[in-house]
Amino acid sequence: MSEIDFRRAQAPDLPAIVALLADDALGAAREDASTPLAPSYLDAFRAIDADPNQLLAVAVEAGQVVGTLQLSFIPGISRKGAWRGQIEGVRVARHRRSGGVGKRMIEWAVEECRSRDCSFVQLTTDKSRQEAHAFYERLGFIASHLGYKMGL
Amino acid sequence: MSEIDFRRAQAPDLPAIVALLADDALGAAREDASTPLAPSYLDAFRAIDADPNQLLAVAVEAGQVVGTLQLSFIPGISRKGAWRGQIEGVRVARHRRSGGVGKRMIEWAVEECRSRDCSFVQLTTDKSRQEAHAFYERLGFIASHLGYKMGL
Repeated sequence: MSEIDFRRAQAPDLPAIVALLADDALGAAREDASTPLAPSYLDAFRAIDADPNQLLAVAVEAGQVVGTLQLSFIPGISRKGAWRGQIEGVRVARHRRSGGVGKRMIEWAVEECRSRDCSFVQLTTDKSRQEAHAFYERLGFIASHLGYKMGL
Repeated sequence: MSEIDFRRAQAPDLPAIVALLADDALGAAREDASTPLAPSYLDAFRAIDADPNQLLAVAVEAGQVVGTLQLSFIPGISRKGAWRGQIEGVRVARHRRSGGVGKRMIEWAVEECRSRDCSFVQLTTDKSRQEAHAFYERLGFIASHLGYKMGL
């Protein structure tokens, strides 16, 4: 595998991030990757970038964004005041899937959580994403919870 | 049901909140409700209270804390830059369970998410909490996801 850098996303990465989110079985119906991007994407980027407890990240290979995820560092009272790291919006570019990019990206994210003194890392994944389930279980995650959502 | 107020938690509520978290099948092994509280609880309270995207809440009835939950308002790129509201650490005092306090507390939390322009609300609950599953489903939540955790 060629060299991959993991780093905080910058504004110029945003179209590539949205394109990754859209190039997905579930994301295709939810995103709009046409440029110029919808202002709501830019607003969201600014909100994330301004929040020290949010880290939108990209995996970059040969100058191209080949993966993305978002980390949220969440303080909580439970578990003796533990911080939790939460991973959302994980995507790897179609042409780089099944090549270890996702594994390295999650391992990087887990290290970021450790460096922020999180006691655990959590994520949810749609029940239909069976390959993702096997992927996270291989990385040591336990499917201990059900994840509920409700649209507003 | 007598009058119940839902409001942001204040520092003097913290021992009651920790006691609620501890008086629970899973929480009993994870918390330490002895007073003075462990400093880690106070540190967590300060981190939550200082973060405009965190809202630790209590339900108060006749001057007593009878419920708690934490809301996190999380900006994200996915779903066209949607904010999500996340609910964690939901507890109702043992003597007030099955009396509608939980339902009203979640409905209050959902309204808080709506007032913050969240597109959806999410939460996870341990697979062993079968009564909680039925509770959230009655309130309109869909168990669309699996929730993974990994200790650090």
